[in-house]
Amino acid sequence: MTALRLDIEYDGAAFLGWAEQPGERSVEGVLRDALDVVFRSRPAIRVAGRTDSGVHASGQVASIVVPDGLAEAEPVRLRRSLAGLLPQDVAVRNVTVMPDGFDARGDATSRVYDYRLLVGPPSPLRRHRTLRHLGRQLDRAALDACAAMAVGQHDFRAFTPTETNHTFFHRTMIECAWRDDGDEWVLRLEANAFLRHMVRVLVGTMLECGRGRRDTESFRALLEGAPRSDAGITAPPHGLTLVAVRY
Amino acid sequence: MTALRLDIEYDGAAFLGWAEQPGERSVEGVLRDALDVVFRSRPAIRVAGRTDSGVHASGQVASIVVPDGLAEAEPVRLRRSLAGLLPQDVAVRNVTVMPDGFDARGDATSRVYDYRLLVGPPSPLRRHRTLRHLGRQLDRAALDACAAMAVGQHDFRAFTPTETNHTFFHRTMIECAWRDDGDEWVLRLEANAFLRHMVRVLVGTMLECGRGRRDTESFRALLEGAPRSDAGITAPPHGLTLVAVRY
Repeated sequence: MTALRLDIEYDGAAFLGWAEQPGERSVEGVLRDALDVVFRSRPAIRVAGRTDSGVHASGQVASIVVPDGLAEAEPVRLRRSLAGLLPQDVAVRNVTVMPDGFDARGDATSRVYDYRLLVGPPSPLRRHRTLRHLGRQLDRAALDACAAMAVGQHDFRAFTPTETNHTFFHRTMIECAWRDDGDEWVLRLEANAFLRHMVRVLVGTMLECGRGRRDTESFRALLEGAPRSDAGITAPPHGLTLVAVRY
Repeated sequence: MTALRLDIEYDGAAFLGWAEQPGERSVEGVLRDALDVVFRSRPAIRVAGRTDSGVHASGQVASIVVPDGLAEAEPVRLRRSLAGLLPQDVAVRNVTVMPDGFDARGDATSRVYDYRLLVGPPSPLRRHRTLRHLGRQLDRAALDACAAMAVGQHDFRAFTPTETNHTFFHRTMIECAWRDDGDEWVLRLEANAFLRHMVRVLVGTMLECGRGRRDTESFRALLEGAPRSDAGITAPPHGLTLVAVRY
């Protein structure tokens, strides 16, 4: 058998997230339908980041295992076949033959996300990719302080829905920092793994600190196993993009 | 009277261009409707670049003249009022009080456009802003050679529809050069003014040279008053953005 790595980009707006769900349009679903046409079988798809509804990806990674020697699996050919089969809002941008046993999910050492916040006037050309900050001035120093606190190993259960089926809530945040990009502030987060909604609740809670509605020092306590109800709102998905997976 | 400069951004996809036309959705039309609500009058709008249907702008400039001393014309207030009135695909990002007699169209010394060409695999997140090059390999050296030829004063009549109502076809190209931006090649064009469709026909013709379907040296003759039928196709509008106006 041959393991193939698929590098995938998608516009999350019209997908109910990565994961296939009955009767819903998912990235996994449309990819599986296309693979089904190419291989006349439905290979299991392993994915590094199970993104939420409305979240984008420029650097998603998935893997499939197919029988050895299939002409359809030749990387350039497979990429072109998929380009002709996939809808315009998802693309397999690269196909790579990997060593035996490669697993896009299990072998990933970290995932990298960007959350984009527009701090200037409305931008029609970026409205689908960036959350526009409304209301009063944001305190950038408070946002920076929160981001710095999030680095390291923490119990992030305050940042995921209580009905989630996670059983282990510790994750290691490798990078968490705001940077400037023109009139946007971009939060770059890299962690070994993320809980469901974790980035969006982190951002929503940081924004409450940035608006002065929540004490910045109290953010630290949320990182040590506080209940979900102590943290802030879930920021909208359209500001979030999975930008890379590291192996 | 007070002259106001409006810095405007729009996503051109759902507009039949800048210019108001009966029964059609235009940027000028929706802006005029919003100004009508604010000022209870329909001030004349002067604009630097009359963009075509489907063309975007991140740096469009328009001007209006309003009576002195109107509270509604205070720049921050006007910007906020318009933000509440305009649809999501157009925004007035800045309002500036200008010296008497300022005219966004007549005072502009040059207009700057970018045409974005994706030379890598399909990119769902950029599909509304970038033309994806399909088909055989593009010869970048040919594209660079064409762009260099276009710099200077030329008779650009080959690059505008014959039914246009221009009477003078000489324009001065100040900059015309391809640059790399990741897996995109971006043509930056700055000229004192542009003819209707001029950027798009320049790009369409350059692409024919880049594909080897047209001799690059023959491009030079097109710049000296050749008929429209000698030039190439009109490239699609969605790759084109008006990025700046210089005064």
